[in-house]
Amino acid sequence: MTLQQHEIIANYLRDEIASGRCAPGDPLPSESELCAQFGSSRGPVRQAMSTLRNEGLISSGRGRRSVVLETIRTQPFDSVISFTQWCNESGVTPGQQTQWMVRKPADKPTADALEITEGEPIVSLLRLRTMNGVPAMLERLTYPLWVGQHVLSFDPDSGSIYQRIIDCGVDIHHATRTIDAIAAPEEDAQLLNVEEGAPLLRMHRRAFTRDGVPIEASDDRYLPSLARFSLTSVRGNPSPLSLVSDLHSAS
Amino acid sequence: MTLQQHEIIANYLRDEIASGRCAPGDPLPSESELCAQFGSSRGPVRQAMSTLRNEGLISSGRGRRSVVLETIRTQPFDSVISFTQWCNESGVTPGQQTQWMVRKPADKPTADALEITEGEPIVSLLRLRTMNGVPAMLERLTYPLWVGQHVLSFDPDSGSIYQRIIDCGVDIHHATRTIDAIAAPEEDAQLLNVEEGAPLLRMHRRAFTRDGVPIEASDDRYLPSLARFSLTSVRGNPSPLSLVSDLHSAS
Repeated sequence: MTLQQHEIIANYLRDEIASGRCAPGDPLPSESELCAQFGSSRGPVRQAMSTLRNEGLISSGRGRRSVVLETIRTQPFDSVISFTQWCNESGVTPGQQTQWMVRKPADKPTADALEITEGEPIVSLLRLRTMNGVPAMLERLTYPLWVGQHVLSFDPDSGSIYQRIIDCGVDIHHATRTIDAIAAPEEDAQLLNVEEGAPLLRMHRRAFTRDGVPIEASDDRYLPSLARFSLTSVRGNPSPLSLVSDLHSAS
Repeated sequence: MTLQQHEIIANYLRDEIASGRCAPGDPLPSESELCAQFGSSRGPVRQAMSTLRNEGLISSGRGRRSVVLETIRTQPFDSVISFTQWCNESGVTPGQQTQWMVRKPADKPTADALEITEGEPIVSLLRLRTMNGVPAMLERLTYPLWVGQHVLSFDPDSGSIYQRIIDCGVDIHHATRTIDAIAAPEEDAQLLNVEEGAPLLRMHRRAFTRDGVPIEASDDRYLPSLARFSLTSVRGNPSPLSLVSDLHSAS
């Protein structure tokens, strides 16, 4: 995959910030300096700055030099989908204990989430995920059969299903995520070693191909004592994280 | 505030998508068409496309025309901070019942969150927020005195404190948000009309000036039956929402 110049410049600046070489409050290099450094015209430099602004990494810089903001770092797309990848990136040792894996006909909610017909075969599994050996999250993963066949032929106790699917050539392009909270049902409480009814942080995720075909629907339930979600928003930029409610459509 | 050309183009495309004139699966206008329409060079057009890609609104378009993705819409920055603004934007009627408002010395956690000295005066309040008259969220807002004085001189039952602060000239520039889940304590349960221990979706927020000075620290607790958080992520773009854990620093 060949990177465009604005992506190279954005990656460079992200790395400067992530490494702490550009610390919060520090000014970024000027447009002219970046143009000279990368042998670039102003367009790609401005596009790179715009990208970082949208990511909440640098200030708006209207009329003055953009400075590095005190921010929560962004997360690579792979870590959005893959708990294993996220742990590896975070310096945590991931683990998994598969509770069950099943091939069965899709019920109505699952068929809707995967945009298939009710009764078509799906592959579904429940895994307890651990961080440094400690129970941290329960993941319920569901796949249409064309993806699930790669999961059935894989040992889900051996590691990342995401990596398995990628290795099998499935084109994971984008994902939608919804976060809410749920009281732990009995099964979840036992596996996560908390009281029944304890609050869990739940993430529903749907992943799609480039053409918008659903690949996966998942329901991850985290112990809030071990995991939370964070982001930075900058005024003048829309926030990608939206608060949503069904209330207005119901009223 | 004068918009730059790439912002005007991005706003136009966002509006085309939000209105449904560009539906999921539809191709976007080509670069040439947008250049002609806005009398623009390719730089701003590409910057606008890059912005929308980062927001997860359009596909990567490597080698082919970018198409509109099935996405969760983004949220204006004002709605990130202001429940009132969010309700207005969502077609919900916001309401508030102030439980108490107090000026007092900062305890250690509050002083840390606001980056002031323990014992310095702060202004703090608890409001029950309603959606269409239904209890939906409890907000605990805390301000350093230089901001809080504008809140003390305001009737918090009359509407948006965010708008009040903006009107008083406070420069709210960016915010960090952290989402987790919590079991409702007795006070919260009574006000939200749920059982004690019921799961609540909690959002901690810190807002800052352009220079990184904390303006506000808040703790919003939503009924998960009425509100949740959603976003879209696209492969190749870092996700601004990060899963975080203290585990690796503790281990």
